[in-house]
Amino acid sequence: MNVHEFIITLAVILLSARVLAELAGRVRVPPVIGDLMAGILLGPSVFGWIEPEATIRIMAEIGVLLLLFKVGLGTDVIHLAKTSRVSLMVACIGFLVPFAFGFALARFVFDLSLLVSLFIGGTLTATSIGISIRVLDDFKRQHSSEGRVVLGAAVMDDILGVVLLALLYEFALNGGIYLPHIGKVVLFILIFLLMAPVMVKSLSLLIEHYEGESQIPGLLPTAIVSLILFFSWLAYAVGAPPILGAFATGLALSRRFHLPFGGAMGQENPNLSDRIDFQMQPISQLMTPVFFVFVGLSLNLREVDWSSPFIWTFFFLLLVSAVIGKLASGLCVKGAWAQKLAVGLSMVPRGEVGLVFAELGLTAGILSNELYSGMILVIAATTFLPPFIMKWLYQTHGHTLDDPA
Amino acid sequence: MNVHEFIITLAVILLSARVLAELAGRVRVPPVIGDLMAGILLGPSVFGWIEPEATIRIMAEIGVLLLLFKVGLGTDVIHLAKTSRVSLMVACIGFLVPFAFGFALARFVFDLSLLVSLFIGGTLTATSIGISIRVLDDFKRQHSSEGRVVLGAAVMDDILGVVLLALLYEFALNGGIYLPHIGKVVLFILIFLLMAPVMVKSLSLLIEHYEGESQIPGLLPTAIVSLILFFSWLAYAVGAPPILGAFATGLALSRRFHLPFGGAMGQENPNLSDRIDFQMQPISQLMTPVFFVFVGLSLNLREVDWSSPFIWTFFFLLLVSAVIGKLASGLCVKGAWAQKLAVGLSMVPRGEVGLVFAELGLTAGILSNELYSGMILVIAATTFLPPFIMKWLYQTHGHTLDDPA
Repeated sequence: MNVHEFIITLAVILLSARVLAELAGRVRVPPVIGDLMAGILLGPSVFGWIEPEATIRIMAEIGVLLLLFKVGLGTDVIHLAKTSRVSLMVACIGFLVPFAFGFALARFVFDLSLLVSLFIGGTLTATSIGISIRVLDDFKRQHSSEGRVVLGAAVMDDILGVVLLALLYEFALNGGIYLPHIGKVVLFILIFLLMAPVMVKSLSLLIEHYEGESQIPGLLPTAIVSLILFFSWLAYAVGAPPILGAFATGLALSRRFHLPFGGAMGQENPNLSDRIDFQMQPISQLMTPVFFVFVGLSLNLREVDWSSPFIWTFFFLLLVSAVIGKLASGLCVKGAWAQKLAVGLSMVPRGEVGLVFAELGLTAGILSNELYSGMILVIAATTFLPPFIMKWLYQTHGHTLDDPA
Repeated sequence: MNVHEFIITLAVILLSARVLAELAGRVRVPPVIGDLMAGILLGPSVFGWIEPEATIRIMAEIGVLLLLFKVGLGTDVIHLAKTSRVSLMVACIGFLVPFAFGFALARFVFDLSLLVSLFIGGTLTATSIGISIRVLDDFKRQHSSEGRVVLGAAVMDDILGVVLLALLYEFALNGGIYLPHIGKVVLFILIFLLMAPVMVKSLSLLIEHYEGESQIPGLLPTAIVSLILFFSWLAYAVGAPPILGAFATGLALSRRFHLPFGGAMGQENPNLSDRIDFQMQPISQLMTPVFFVFVGLSLNLREVDWSSPFIWTFFFLLLVSAVIGKLASGLCVKGAWAQKLAVGLSMVPRGEVGLVFAELGLTAGILSNELYSGMILVIAATTFLPPFIMKWLYQTHGHTLDDPA
């Protein structure tokens, strides 16, 4: 894509996402549906004006990294730590149940091979952290107790997803699994999770020191975006999902994050978090919609053979497993059933993470075109339906839920 | 370039530009030199870590568009209009004299063909508006009287450059020039210059109206960046330089720009300019350095055969013409000789605009490798030297210049 093409493409993406999100708001549909619809309309599903090609993918990735950074920055570390046990349970159940259901359906009902069945199960485990968070944000529930549980669980789910992908890759390549390889991946991710916040926090003290001295404006946005990009890349380099790096960066810079040995490293200034938040807002507000539009662009509904009865059966059974599997994860949350349902529903959207699995399956020759298009339908339904159900839930049972903290 | 490569590349570009610009500031060298040096060091000239490839080129282009938007937004239209006659004279002299000198040298001293000589003359006409403005900004002279003259002249010079490029292209293709073609280009650019600000201003009233109503945060950055991108593309589509679109967008949104029929179209709010300025600052501060680094990346000093006596003669004679030609343009400015010199020096940097000419000449087979590397040296020298001379000028003769308005 050349410069001029890209410039007009980006303008069209930004503008149509905004217009459709505003329209969605007017007809009382969650705004994220507007962003996704912009992608569906502009992309190969409907008009075919914009392909989800490399440069837009890069912009979308930067958009989701900035989103996760923002979420990390706005997170109360102490609250997150308090709900971490519940989050872990939600993540594990929401991972294992859809995997087991998907695998069993594929293997025993549709009689598919072991590898294909494992892959279909794997695709169902995904949670689109971007869409889950955005939906909660649209309802102003991001800082509620269920919001914190979902955030923690979605992050853990992404880590589990990466480990599973490594396992499946190993299995597809060698027909078996060599545990030390997987152990290495898990170990690296754990080391990263322990080290990254400490490194970011230390670097932030350096940034704060130079911020006062610099004669050239714009140190904060440049330094913070560099940090986000660097730690996302580092996460990727150790085998973790890149968004984990962006989230860890945000967390380390958040108001209530302190190093155990913070006092020795120089003075901490709580205002730094506010200044960062303030300066990063326009940048993330600009880039984040590109990510949601990209999810819509990637979802090619033309690839679905709408007349095949097999696809409809496959779709329906897998959708039920995908939804029930994630709803089950909400059961381990304490509180009213509406609370359990809200957590479960927030975990349902597969979004871009599911697409990564499905596309990998297609390009590796594991999924046939027919199975792939069935999966696309499942991913689309899990991405588009929850916002509507959650809207109904908050309108009718919102009063039984905890107030946002 | 894949997503992960790009993420780390962008982090390295942002970080090294910042560090080198800060270091430049410490040793009292203009900070833009730090950005350019980052590109030289990272690029093929020294370490060869980063190639000036497509995605970085796109980011750099967005960076220069945002810079020109910012400059337009900060421009006092009434002052700009007042100096427009002087600017036009500066642009014309700074265009014709280097062209004539470069052409004459190539044709009669180095005995090159007509087309090659025209091309070499053309390369010398360029003014890097980005670098000229940044140098003035580094010295806090952007809003001085010479700053306004240079801004107007650099914009006009870019338009002249596009027309010349169209002429040369026509000549290279057909061996002659068909004037109606060129007339069409000029006519389209004039129509664009008249229409774009009116369209932007009208759209800004719409944006202001919806800004109050929107429930989704971030309308302003998204809407303004879309406008900048759209009008840059429109400028390109009518045959004008894209930066003209970005500059016109900024100008139309600036504090003192009013439509003749503005009253009839709704209330104008002077605060809108301030809000836009405020929200766009982190975005342009983040993206603009990518442009300067890209200029450094594109300048491959390894392509120069440093041992060839021809190149040194060619370089030296062309450099003298390039500098004298632009300095001559300063003569039509009223005031002290330091004022004339400041304007002339600001017009000297060829930067990316010169590189576009030279690269086009190389890829079209018009310039040999030897001539191309000579031109690269001339462009590098005109880009790197003026900031130092201007620094000396402002330090020793700053008191004889007008105060910044």
